Amino acid sequence: MKYYLSSDQAPKDYYNIAADLSEPLLPPLHPQTKQPVGPTDLAPLFPMELIKQEVSTERYIQIPEEVRSLYQLYRPSPLVRATRLEKALKTKARIYFKYEGSSPSGSHKTNTALAQAFYNYQEGIKKIVTETGAGQWGTALSFACAQFGLDCEVYMVRGSYDQKPYRKAIMETFGASVFPSPSTRTEVGRGQLKNDPGSLGSLGIAISEAVEVAVQDQDTHYALGSVLNHVLLHQTVIGQEALKQFELANDYPDVVIAPLGGGSNFAGLSFPFIGEMLRGGKKVRAIAVEPASCPKLTRGVFGYDFGDTAGFTPLLPMYSLGHDFMPPGLHAGGLRYHGASALCSHLLNKGQIQAVALQQLECFEAGLLFAKTEGVLPAPEANHAIAQAIREAKEADQQGIEKVILFNLCGHGHFDMSAYEDFIKGKLQDHSLDEEVLKKSAAAVQQL
Amino acid sequence: MKYYLSSDQAPKDYYNIAADLSEPLLPPLHPQTKQPVGPTDLAPLFPMELIKQEVSTERYIQIPEEVRSLYQLYRPSPLVRATRLEKALKTKARIYFKYEGSSPSGSHKTNTALAQAFYNYQEGIKKIVTETGAGQWGTALSFACAQFGLDCEVYMVRGSYDQKPYRKAIMETFGASVFPSPSTRTEVGRGQLKNDPGSLGSLGIAISEAVEVAVQDQDTHYALGSVLNHVLLHQTVIGQEALKQFELANDYPDVVIAPLGGGSNFAGLSFPFIGEMLRGGKKVRAIAVEPASCPKLTRGVFGYDFGDTAGFTPLLPMYSLGHDFMPPGLHAGGLRYHGASALCSHLLNKGQIQAVALQQLECFEAGLLFAKTEGVLPAPEANHAIAQAIREAKEADQQGIEKVILFNLCGHGHFDMSAYEDFIKGKLQDHSLDEEVLKKSAAAVQQL
Repeated sequence: MKYYLSSDQAPKDYYNIAADLSEPLLPPLHPQTKQPVGPTDLAPLFPMELIKQEVSTERYIQIPEEVRSLYQLYRPSPLVRATRLEKALKTKARIYFKYEGSSPSGSHKTNTALAQAFYNYQEGIKKIVTETGAGQWGTALSFACAQFGLDCEVYMVRGSYDQKPYRKAIMETFGASVFPSPSTRTEVGRGQLKNDPGSLGSLGIAISEAVEVAVQDQDTHYALGSVLNHVLLHQTVIGQEALKQFELANDYPDVVIAPLGGGSNFAGLSFPFIGEMLRGGKKVRAIAVEPASCPKLTRGVFGYDFGDTAGFTPLLPMYSLGHDFMPPGLHAGGLRYHGASALCSHLLNKGQIQAVALQQLECFEAGLLFAKTEGVLPAPEANHAIAQAIREAKEADQQGIEKVILFNLCGHGHFDMSAYEDFIKGKLQDHSLDEEVLKKSAAAVQQL
Repeated sequence: MKYYLSSDQAPKDYYNIAADLSEPLLPPLHPQTKQPVGPTDLAPLFPMELIKQEVSTERYIQIPEEVRSLYQLYRPSPLVRATRLEKALKTKARIYFKYEGSSPSGSHKTNTALAQAFYNYQEGIKKIVTETGAGQWGTALSFACAQFGLDCEVYMVRGSYDQKPYRKAIMETFGASVFPSPSTRTEVGRGQLKNDPGSLGSLGIAISEAVEVAVQDQDTHYALGSVLNHVLLHQTVIGQEALKQFELANDYPDVVIAPLGGGSNFAGLSFPFIGEMLRGGKKVRAIAVEPASCPKLTRGVFGYDFGDTAGFTPLLPMYSLGHDFMPPGLHAGGLRYHGASALCSHLLNKGQIQAVALQQLECFEAGLLFAKTEGVLPAPEANHAIAQAIREAKEADQQGIEKVILFNLCGHGHFDMSAYEDFIKGKLQDHSLDEEVLKKSAAAVQQL
C-alpha cells in the first residue's frame, strides 16, 4: 500500500525544530577565542542565507520556488506500508517506510544539495567544493550543481573511491570533478600522505581538504552534507510529507526510526514528528540507529569538538568519539563519522530521543529480507533502520501490543553491491572496539 | 509533472494484440517436420497456461490475483512529463516518458518475470532456468522466483558477467545461482569453449544452455525474457496504464517510442496504443529503436529462423540477422539479439509500425542530457528511445508543428556505470557492420 501526495500538497516551508526547543542550543565556538562564531567567520564558506538558517529560531522557513520546482522531479516521495515484510515477520505491528531512493542521487541527500546549490548560485558563487564518504552526498551535490551551472569538486574518502568506482562515474556523469582523499592537492592531504602513504582516508580528513580548497577562492564555497543545522532543516520535507501521508493512511506512528551518521537523515524524518510532540501533540518515540563500530551517541562524550580531523571547523556542541577517531572499515560509509549534529545531540542529552547501536551483520540480514519481500535493495545505511524496525515489531509481538512503526528508507543500495557480495559470501564480520582506543580519542572532546 | 494511478486503477487484464491483427500471425514451426509446433512440443519448457497465452487470440487475458498483488510493489508506474528536458531542447513538443526503473529489477522485465514465475509455481514446477544478457532479465526472474519459493539458475553472457559483477551480486542477493555462459555445465557450452576458450558468449548461446538444462528435469522449466507472444503480452500493463494516464493529462501521443531488443519493451508500451488504432481509434506512430550494430529490423530478413544459436528452439517467423550473427560488444546488452519477436516483425512487415537504427554515441549523449535534466540515469537500452524522442522533437520544431511524444524509460542505468565511464572518457565508438558478414549470417534465415 502506497500513499502519494500531489505536488501541490508538498511542503512549502522547511520546519525548524529550534523554534520548539525548551532550551536553546549551545552555540558553535571559535577554536582560538572560545567565543561563539559569528556570520563573518562563516562567510568564506557559506552563503549568507544558509548562515542565517544556521542560527534561525523561526519555526518555518520558506522553500525557494526554484528548489520546490526541482523537488518535483522526485518529491513528494511515497509513504509505503511494508505489508510483505510484515507477513514475512508474522507480526501484528504495522510497518511503514518513507522511500527516498528515487531521487537523482538515490538518497535523501538531494533534498539539501538542491537548496545549498541554489543559495550559493543566488549569491553569485561559481564553484562548490565538498567531501563524500559513501558517495551519496557527492552524487547529490554533483546533480544539484549541474542544475544551476555551478562547478563541483568532490574529495572522496580513498577507501570508498577504490571500493565504489561507479560512484565516481555517476558524479562525473553529472559533471563533477572527483579526487581521492587524502589527495596531493591540499596541505592537509599531503601531510596525511606523508605520515601514511597508503591512507584510506576518513570523512574528517576529506572535510579538511574541501574546506582548505574552498577558502582559497572568493568565488568558491564549501558545502556539508549533514551535521549542520541548515542541512537538517532542509531534510524536514521528508517528515512533513510523512505527517500528511499518515493522515491519508488514517494512522500515526508510535516509533520513528532512522539511521544516524551526522544526523540529517534522522532529523529529516523525525523532527516534524518530534516537533508535534514538543508542542503538546501526539507522543512519538524517535530512535536514532548508529553502527556499533562508530557509536558516538551510545559511547561518545557530550561536549565541544571539531567537525573535521585537521581542526579547521568551529567547535561544535555534540556527542563525539573525538575528531581523530578512526572507525573500522564499515560497509555503511555514510555512518562513519565521529560526531552527531548539535540538534540531535541536544535532543538526546535532554532525553527527547533515543539511540541504539547495531552490528552490521544483523543490519545486512534485515536488508536482505527487506529486498526479497519489498523489492527494494536498501543502502547499507538504511539497513540499520530496517533492523531496528524489525526489533521493534518483534518486541511488540512479544508484549502483545499493537505498534505502528515508521522508518526512513533513505536510499537504494545499487552502488553498494560489493558489500552485499561480501555479506553473502560470509566475508563480513561484526566489530568490537578497543576500549583504550575509544578512551584515548574521546579525550579530544571538551566535556560539558 | 507526474501522473499517478491508484492501485485500483491498475489494469486487471493483459492486452493481447493478436485479437486485433487483420491477418493472423504465422505459426512457429518444428525444425524437422516444418509443421506448426503444438502444446506438447513446448510442454517440457513452459507451463500450459503460458503455452495457451502464446497462441491465444482473446483480446483480454486476466492477470492472476497473486501477480496483481505483487505488481503493487512498484506499479502503476508514473507517467512523467519531461518539462526540464523540453526546456533544455527549447522544443515546443510535449515529451512524456513512462518510468519502469522503480521495479525490483530496475527495469520493465519484472512485469513478465512475476507472471511467468507464478504460472510455473501453479503447475508445481520447482526450478526455472534462464539466460541473461545485460542482467536485467536475470535480476527480474531471480526476484520473481524468490516470491514463489522457486529455485532460479541463470546463464549470463560471459561478456556481461565479467563487465558487470554487481548484476551477478544482485541476482545472488535475490537467491539465484549465476553461471557465465558459455559454461562447462552443458554440451552446448563445452562445445563453444572447445572452439573458442576465450568466448565472450552471446544471448543465443546462453539460451541454448538454459534450454539444455531445463529439458533434463521434469520439475524444471525454462523462461524467456522477451521475443515470445506471452512475454510481450505481460508487458502490456505499461501501455494500458499510459493510456489512462494520458486521460489524466488530457493529452494523447502522436508518437510512441521504445527500444527493441527482442520486442517486449516496445510491445509493452506501444501495443495498447496500436490496438486502439487498429480498432479504428486514434492514430499513433509507433517507432521501434534498435542499435545500428544489431539492426535486425532495418537490415535483417523477414523469414523463419531459430531463436537460439544451437537451434534448439522452434523456427520463428521474424526479422532476423541470422541466428549465428554475432553483434559487436555494444554497451546496450539488452539489444544484442539477432531477431525480433513474431508480433513486432508482423506489424513491421504490414507497415503498421516503424523502425530506426541509431548509433550508440548519439544515444549516450541523449542519456547524459536526460540524466542532468530529469534526474534519472537511464539504462543504455533506454537511451535509444530518448535519442529518438529528441530527434522527433527537433523535427517537429523544424516543421513548425506541435507534437506529443511518449517513450519508454525502461530502466535505470545504475548497473551500467562502466559504459557511462567509457563514454565520458571518449572510449566508446560507433560501429559499422561488414556487409559480407551481414550477408553470410542472413543466409541462415529461411526467407518468406
